Amino acid sequence: MRIDLNSDVGESYGAWVMGQDEALIPMVTSVNIACGSHAGDPTIMARTVALAAEHGATVGAHPGYPDREGFGRRDISLSTEQLEVSILYQLGALYAFCRDADVRLRHVKPHGALYNRAARDTAVARAVARAVRRFDSSLTLVGLAGSALLDAGRAEGLRVAAEAFADRAYEPDGTLRSRRHADAVLPDPESAAEQAVSIVVLGRAVAANGSNVDIRADTLCIHGDTPGAPEYARAVRNALQAAGVELAPLHHDE
Amino acid sequence: MRIDLNSDVGESYGAWVMGQDEALIPMVTSVNIACGSHAGDPTIMARTVALAAEHGATVGAHPGYPDREGFGRRDISLSTEQLEVSILYQLGALYAFCRDADVRLRHVKPHGALYNRAARDTAVARAVARAVRRFDSSLTLVGLAGSALLDAGRAEGLRVAAEAFADRAYEPDGTLRSRRHADAVLPDPESAAEQAVSIVVLGRAVAANGSNVDIRADTLCIHGDTPGAPEYARAVRNALQAAGVELAPLHHDE
Amino acid sequence: MRIDLNSDVGESYGAWVMGQDEALIPMVTSVNIACGSHAGDPTIMARTVALAAEHGATVGAHPGYPDREGFGRRDISLSTEQLEVSILYQLGALYAFCRDADVRLRHVKPHGALYNRAARDTAVARAVARAVRRFDSSLTLVGLAGSALLDAGRAEGLRVAAEAFADRAYEPDGTLRSRRHADAVLPDPESAAEQAVSIVVLGRAVAANGSNVDIRADTLCIHGDTPGAPEYARAVRNALQAAGVELAPLHHDE
Amino acid sequence: MRIDLNSDVGESYGAWVMGQDEALIPMVTSVNIACGSHAGDPTIMARTVALAAEHGATVGAHPGYPDREGFGRRDISLSTEQLEVSILYQLGALYAFCRDADVRLRHVKPHGALYNRAARDTAVARAVARAVRRFDSSLTLVGLAGSALLDAGRAEGLRVAAEAFADRAYEPDGTLRSRRHADAVLPDPESAAEQAVSIVVLGRAVAANGSNVDIRADTLCIHGDTPGAPEYARAVRNALQAAGVELAPLHHDE
Repeated sequence: MRIDLNSDVGESYGAWVMGQDEALIPMVTSVNIACGSHAGDPTIMARTVALAAEHGATVGAHPGYPDREGFGRRDISLSTEQLEVSILYQLGALYAFCRDADVRLRHVKPHGALYNRAARDTAVARAVARAVRRFDSSLTLVGLAGSALLDAGRAEGLRVAAEAFADRAYEPDGTLRSRRHADAVLPDPESAAEQAVSIVVLGRAVAANGSNVDIRADTLCIHGDTPGAPEYARAVRNALQAAGVELAPLHHDE
Repeated sequence: MRIDLNSDVGESYGAWVMGQDEALIPMVTSVNIACGSHAGDPTIMARTVALAAEHGATVGAHPGYPDREGFGRRDISLSTEQLEVSILYQLGALYAFCRDADVRLRHVKPHGALYNRAARDTAVARAVARAVRRFDSSLTLVGLAGSALLDAGRAEGLRVAAEAFADRAYEPDGTLRSRRHADAVLPDPESAAEQAVSIVVLGRAVAANGSNVDIRADTLCIHGDTPGAPEYARAVRNALQAAGVELAPLHHDE
Repeated sequence: MRIDLNSDVGESYGAWVMGQDEALIPMVTSVNIACGSHAGDPTIMARTVALAAEHGATVGAHPGYPDREGFGRRDISLSTEQLEVSILYQLGALYAFCRDADVRLRHVKPHGALYNRAARDTAVARAVARAVRRFDSSLTLVGLAGSALLDAGRAEGLRVAAEAFADRAYEPDGTLRSRRHADAVLPDPESAAEQAVSIVVLGRAVAANGSNVDIRADTLCIHGDTPGAPEYARAVRNALQAAGVELAPLHHDE
Repeated sequence: MRIDLNSDVGESYGAWVMGQDEALIPMVTSVNIACGSHAGDPTIMARTVALAAEHGATVGAHPGYPDREGFGRRDISLSTEQLEVSILYQLGALYAFCRDADVRLRHVKPHGALYNRAARDTAVARAVARAVRRFDSSLTLVGLAGSALLDAGRAEGLRVAAEAFADRAYEPDGTLRSRRHADAVLPDPESAAEQAVSIVVLGRAVAANGSNVDIRADTLCIHGDTPGAPEYARAVRNALQAAGVELAPLHHDE
């Protein structure tokens, strides 16, 4: 058994800091780096690629809607062509820093409102997958386990990776419990660690209503923008290793 | 004898149009495409790369200061590291559209205030040259003939190309006559055509004060954002061809 | 009989020009000035307020979604509170230039996607109306004749003005024919002039399907961003005056 | 003896937090609120005005260069007219939230690179002062004690207030010690408290080289974006009160 641990990083902007990248990146096996549209800027992108390289984390892109003020969390009615070229732009921008640092760009995971929309909206999912394929068909597309985005990625001939969440509560149908509910995020690192082991070892989690829900995941997301993120990450890592799970990046080229 | 004719294009933004790219691109041998920082956006970048490919113009990047409201014409006191990563970001973004269109990115020419500053400020010139080399050392760096930017490019091991202007008046020292003067731009297409032939065939122009000034140019810039730009371009092309000059892109790989 | 002629102006941005404000403003009785969010910037706002003052046009604000790249034509899922404060911000920004020029800010007309959404989405309509009332309850709110926005304005105690379009085709239910149809815009200045007179004098227009549709309007919009806008404006003005209609700004304080 | 304590606040942006406004605002007598150009957005501006009103702090504007990515800390070569209208825009935007909250806008203090430039560059100082006067000639202009900005404010007929810094080291000539030096910021809250009392009670501080430097201040700035800011503020307050100094906002209307 093995699993990839990923985290969304490089989401600072100018003088504003988001997340705890220095503490978190050493604890994950892959990172998704913001590309300057919802967060990140050239200085931060360069620094984050370097940090990932230093700690051996696999580098992926984390494109979002072009909306800094909304941090990519608001839906914008881009046409599918506008969305595709926006993603191409973001992939190219991050690629420049990978190329400069002699690091390979390996995967793409959309951010925020785009991630959620691409999980259920087929046209948006296809636009994301097409943009990734247009840039580099060897990239792995990361999306919510069971989502339309993974279907779209497969249809474009991309390698895909199913993502699950150690620290988020699930609904019985496998969707994430909305952040409108108080119990959307698991209450402590121990609960997240327990859910991580359950997903990886047993292929299931306990949903918010107490029922079991099947979840097949290639990668687990560790949120970096929540208080105590490094503690959650450490608890998840330790529990997985204690359960005999190997932590390793996605095998993009198998 | 031969010369490259270049034009700055892709400088529209969203719903706002700048220049007459459809009319101008067919008349030049290479284009410098804005990269989304001072002008351009993903949609426009994709469309402009396609237009260049359609008409066989060689594609280069036209990075500028990150300042849309000032159209890259205002100096910003970026640190040299901020400037380098800003240029890397812009090169990567444009590269994505080249890659998608199966077009090779061949050269880089800075825009506006950055072009002017890099012509005379050694530290800025070096930062521009380093950014280009960090992205791709096979790119040609285009700068004002006789400028610090060309020296910096050579010092970084880059191929460089000296640029002259068909439609701008020169000072006796080879610098461009400031736009603060009424006669900074030549008055009609015929004057521009005459100056173009003089620069290419004789290696000199007549300065604003009537004296001769030596100018050795690898490429002539045709401005696209002035009224009548296509007429200027046509006059310059016709006069050069009548003088037996071959119009051809820079031989980047010789 | 009398009517206000209004136009959306000040929609340039930095070095990019939109519309023909110098030609159009002398022909209308009121203007809606972009506030720097979808278009406009401080320089353009100052210049446009001055132009309106010079020609005696009544000044209103034209707030839009904060989305320059999309020119305010894309829906963004702002919360109603985000929308309210965005509009407050825009009204204040334009107010500064009115105050400086000793011009009174008299009305507010939302732009683009916000105008369309506020016409049919009650929550958005209320947010717009609340923002206007929070800034200055003596402002007139301008919206599509028969729209939810006018209802919301009345509910907030605001004076409202119903807008009709001289140059756009109508559907039988009084909505505007979508721009997806080739006949969404009337084909020539004469048709627009005829429709203007019909709306003002008879209170009705001929819909795209040939039936009559009742339209009661306090103000007619003259688009400034279409080719030939000043010709349309002139034809509409002349036809209305020939029909004995007085052209006068909204009587905000009656 | 009495003094105003001011702090720069509202410098968060979207999802990014800067400073500790909730902890700091209760400890100062006036605040300078970012206006959406270098920092702040409509949501944050509304919230910060409300917070100031709740704690009885006098509200001023904190305009900066339009450069979010550089946090207003980079010089931009705006023309003086561009600078004036940029400031007008920012003052109007903040005014909207003051008007909505029934709070009076009382003063203006430029931010970052604009503050520093206006302290020594007469043309920039005049542009800032003119913009303030054009918006509202009853506003107080706050600038570095002894700076060109205060002279410009007086020349425009504005009330001015001289600012000193409790937590920054001074040079013998009364300028601030550059942040390039390790000792630019005083090492602990006690040192800041001591310097505050010395400035207010004795009208002098001990410069970095050990000599005395005369400083006459109407207001002391408490930085909010440094670690431990509330502790510094508390130490300064307590020391000033122990020395018999009354903490009170600027008497703008005396």
